[in-house]
Amino acid sequence: MKIALCQINPIVGDMNGNAAIILNYYARAKKMGAELCVFPELALTGYPPMDLIDRKDLVDDALEIINSKIAPQVKDCGLLVGSINHNLNDGKRYFNSAFFMDEGRIISIINKQLLPTYDLFDEMRYYQEGKPTSPVYYKGLRLGVHICEDMWRNESPYSQKLYEEDPVDHLGEQGVDIFINLSASPFAKGKDLNRHNIMAKYAAKWKVPFVMVNTVGANDSAVFDGRSKFVSKAGQILVEAKAFEEDLIVVDTQKEYDPHSVVKHSDIETVYNALVLGLKDYVRKNNLKSVVIGLSGGMDSALCATIAGDAVGPNNVTCITMPTRFSSKGSVEHSDQLCKKLGVKLIKFSIEEIFCNFVEGLKDNFGKTPSEMTLENLQPRVRGTILMAYTNSTPGNILVAPGNKSEIATGYCTLYGDTCGALALIGDVYKTEVYELARFINRNGEVIPQDIIDKQPSAELRPDQYDTDSLPPYEVLDEILKLYIEGKYSPKEIYTKVSAKKEIVDKVIDLVIKSEFKRRQLPPVIKVSSKAFVLDRRWPVVHKFR
Amino acid sequence: MKIALCQINPIVGDMNGNAAIILNYYARAKKMGAELCVFPELALTGYPPMDLIDRKDLVDDALEIINSKIAPQVKDCGLLVGSINHNLNDGKRYFNSAFFMDEGRIISIINKQLLPTYDLFDEMRYYQEGKPTSPVYYKGLRLGVHICEDMWRNESPYSQKLYEEDPVDHLGEQGVDIFINLSASPFAKGKDLNRHNIMAKYAAKWKVPFVMVNTVGANDSAVFDGRSKFVSKAGQILVEAKAFEEDLIVVDTQKEYDPHSVVKHSDIETVYNALVLGLKDYVRKNNLKSVVIGLSGGMDSALCATIAGDAVGPNNVTCITMPTRFSSKGSVEHSDQLCKKLGVKLIKFSIEEIFCNFVEGLKDNFGKTPSEMTLENLQPRVRGTILMAYTNSTPGNILVAPGNKSEIATGYCTLYGDTCGALALIGDVYKTEVYELARFINRNGEVIPQDIIDKQPSAELRPDQYDTDSLPPYEVLDEILKLYIEGKYSPKEIYTKVSAKKEIVDKVIDLVIKSEFKRRQLPPVIKVSSKAFVLDRRWPVVHKFR
Repeated sequence: MKIALCQINPIVGDMNGNAAIILNYYARAKKMGAELCVFPELALTGYPPMDLIDRKDLVDDALEIINSKIAPQVKDCGLLVGSINHNLNDGKRYFNSAFFMDEGRIISIINKQLLPTYDLFDEMRYYQEGKPTSPVYYKGLRLGVHICEDMWRNESPYSQKLYEEDPVDHLGEQGVDIFINLSASPFAKGKDLNRHNIMAKYAAKWKVPFVMVNTVGANDSAVFDGRSKFVSKAGQILVEAKAFEEDLIVVDTQKEYDPHSVVKHSDIETVYNALVLGLKDYVRKNNLKSVVIGLSGGMDSALCATIAGDAVGPNNVTCITMPTRFSSKGSVEHSDQLCKKLGVKLIKFSIEEIFCNFVEGLKDNFGKTPSEMTLENLQPRVRGTILMAYTNSTPGNILVAPGNKSEIATGYCTLYGDTCGALALIGDVYKTEVYELARFINRNGEVIPQDIIDKQPSAELRPDQYDTDSLPPYEVLDEILKLYIEGKYSPKEIYTKVSAKKEIVDKVIDLVIKSEFKRRQLPPVIKVSSKAFVLDRRWPVVHKFR
Repeated sequence: MKIALCQINPIVGDMNGNAAIILNYYARAKKMGAELCVFPELALTGYPPMDLIDRKDLVDDALEIINSKIAPQVKDCGLLVGSINHNLNDGKRYFNSAFFMDEGRIISIINKQLLPTYDLFDEMRYYQEGKPTSPVYYKGLRLGVHICEDMWRNESPYSQKLYEEDPVDHLGEQGVDIFINLSASPFAKGKDLNRHNIMAKYAAKWKVPFVMVNTVGANDSAVFDGRSKFVSKAGQILVEAKAFEEDLIVVDTQKEYDPHSVVKHSDIETVYNALVLGLKDYVRKNNLKSVVIGLSGGMDSALCATIAGDAVGPNNVTCITMPTRFSSKGSVEHSDQLCKKLGVKLIKFSIEEIFCNFVEGLKDNFGKTPSEMTLENLQPRVRGTILMAYTNSTPGNILVAPGNKSEIATGYCTLYGDTCGALALIGDVYKTEVYELARFINRNGEVIPQDIIDKQPSAELRPDQYDTDSLPPYEVLDEILKLYIEGKYSPKEIYTKVSAKKEIVDKVIDLVIKSEFKRRQLPPVIKVSSKAFVLDRRWPVVHKFR
């Protein structure tokens, strides 16, 4: 059977727009000879609609569009698309379903059985678990249709399996000719290998090929990387759709393919592309146009500016450098070099006078010289105010917050200062990964000036200040943070896993716990790791657990 | 049987501290003749522990404390307390359980069956649904023990019942002598009546009395109001524990009580007390001490200052008034009057010079006169920076953000300006309710100066500016907002329910949708309504649904 992998980029809640994309792909796929078109999970509503579906009319609209706009167009070539269905019995209000259409009508509805409710996923908030299903008979084949998490039962993020049933095995036991998975599987570094391994295992176990169609594009924090796959019954990837782009591929389940034609992507390349797409879609889907970034002369803001140039084009990026007496000479010079390389606009704005004026005001009105911490926090807040003034000055601007994950984890950032912005672009990228990304960007020639990469990290908020005055070296810090955040290890377990002293480990964990209130006020971060802040990792502010 | 209602205020993750409170109450209740002590849901771990329990050692610690510290103390008088248990089979990692102890050991463990996963609740993220249970036989009685949501099956926030089973009826059908519910039921205006109605219905249906023990105290956004109850088999409240305070009451299930002794609380009184306790516990449980508030001379900040005085004592409240040329004469005068009434410190800090200096800087560096919106947003951002400078100047301070729900809903607030603070104290209180609270506060004499209450609401960011320039009158606005937010109605449905024109309704809804990015960066709000922002109502930033 010729199956079209329709890897589209829907917008959440834009059912009419998404339906138009679906019908466009359907028509194109049919011309390419497809006998069945497969679209991603919740392709019609966008994923995740979150509490939008507290509005029952969203689900009614989606059903109406399926029945009156999509199904009537479907003839000779089946169309399988994810959308939401009402649950008419007691239990959660909806099903997360795959609608199978042909000959102008719905011929089958398959409900998702395993509902991920961990990390960024909240599906049990909305959906009732589907009952075990049977294969769908279509054009002489038995199709093992299921949805995203249904194939992930054996890949629990915890030490135990989160679900009792295995929907794919249940289909396999009944006899299928091909497995088909509709996914909205968000990107995380290294995760795509898991997808392949899961497909390969089931394909080999039941000796049938496996098609998975994933969504692509970013919605809020989640980036979907596409990379839809056709895996042979031997478990090899025969065909893979593009990463981080829409794609339409028709595969012939009877044909032989050369597995060597599959493009390989390094982890760091995928992280970079995820960040670019995350920003690009945030701007585009919010009807915005241009990006504003405060440049410190350091690595983080340089990385953000580079990503922004790729995401919205250099003409739509404005950088502002705002030195004080504490700023090194390099802070402006290196920013200048960077902006020339990137071809983006740079505004220089010395904040020395405003800063001094503020300090005088504080001294006069509070009756004492401000503390060192007060003075340090004051500078980023003045900068944040200027960046917001510029951003507010023209519609269509968005300010990007440049903090990295190591800083955000430890609270080494000023709230309402360097955290200002509508998107924390690299808030899920550790500092050590920031350098890795810089090397990746410069792989074919210098884009980010080497001087920026080589300089010792400093907030430049007082003379001769370096990050290592307050924090352990980033290699040590990131190792501890990864064990604590991604690894979910206890302090006791971490002591035995790192060479750093117990006091260092305790200090780092204490910083993480005490800065939760700051993270609650961050803009959305683009998720690229297995455990992004706030979205995936929902810790209370008020607690006494160490 | 003499049952002790042990209404305690635990701290999340403080298992040793909570165990000490539990044992203290147990000893006191025993002296009062109790034969069984009932504590709230998750009393040992605190509620809700959120993703803290990704750390398995938290659950191990809690079990260890039950086995080695609590159970050994239990003799002659049973102890029933909520905590977390491991699920050793496939499925979610834990159970939300009631541990029944006597004679030095655990005699029974009852697992929660209905797991709320809507609004602020995320229980299916962590817990496996318990299987239907049987009554516990204890001292000759059949106890129908169950946990919180188990009794709420018929009170779905949606049009359908969220669960198939009814655990209380299932217990009733097996024959029970008393129902016992362990709760962590958060406060929302008017909700306590539901609790009573539910208990009354089951009590009358099965002709047995009903005890419910609720937790008290605030954790992050959720305030628990206590008001544990003993309801007769006729459905009358016979005894009720205090609202918003810890309490210990021993009830005799055989005794006759006079139902008239139950204290009544008006809705507005409970909202006020919820806000006071919300702030008080946020300060105390975070080891903070004092509250900083920027006073505009308007109603919202005046209300926040009053609440703060009651929450942490007037000596621990510092107010700062920061006029510009646009501030009315009353802005400072009325702030002065208010602070004298409340007995709190007031600092006057004219920001005119810093503001002018900023405006000059923007003009010079951006090469154009800043837009009106830029100038308007600049003032609150200068104020936010000053408030943070003061807050940072002494450890133990917390800045409170004064925005009300009507402003936050419509985005009528300046991000990194008046939204600065670690807690959005009245972020779940509509402007019309702000006035209702002011009247409640002044019921026995003027506390908030009448001039503040009477003045026309204004942000005072430009000459002769009033809120009604940008927004409909608050009565009209709040009516629309309540239908849209709490009511979850579609625009079409709202048109038919309000007298305001369609264009007004559309404009308000558009403002709500466009300001979601601001709400994502707000500090936690104290929940007092059935649908608090961000916590209960999780809308995407990027979407196209109207």
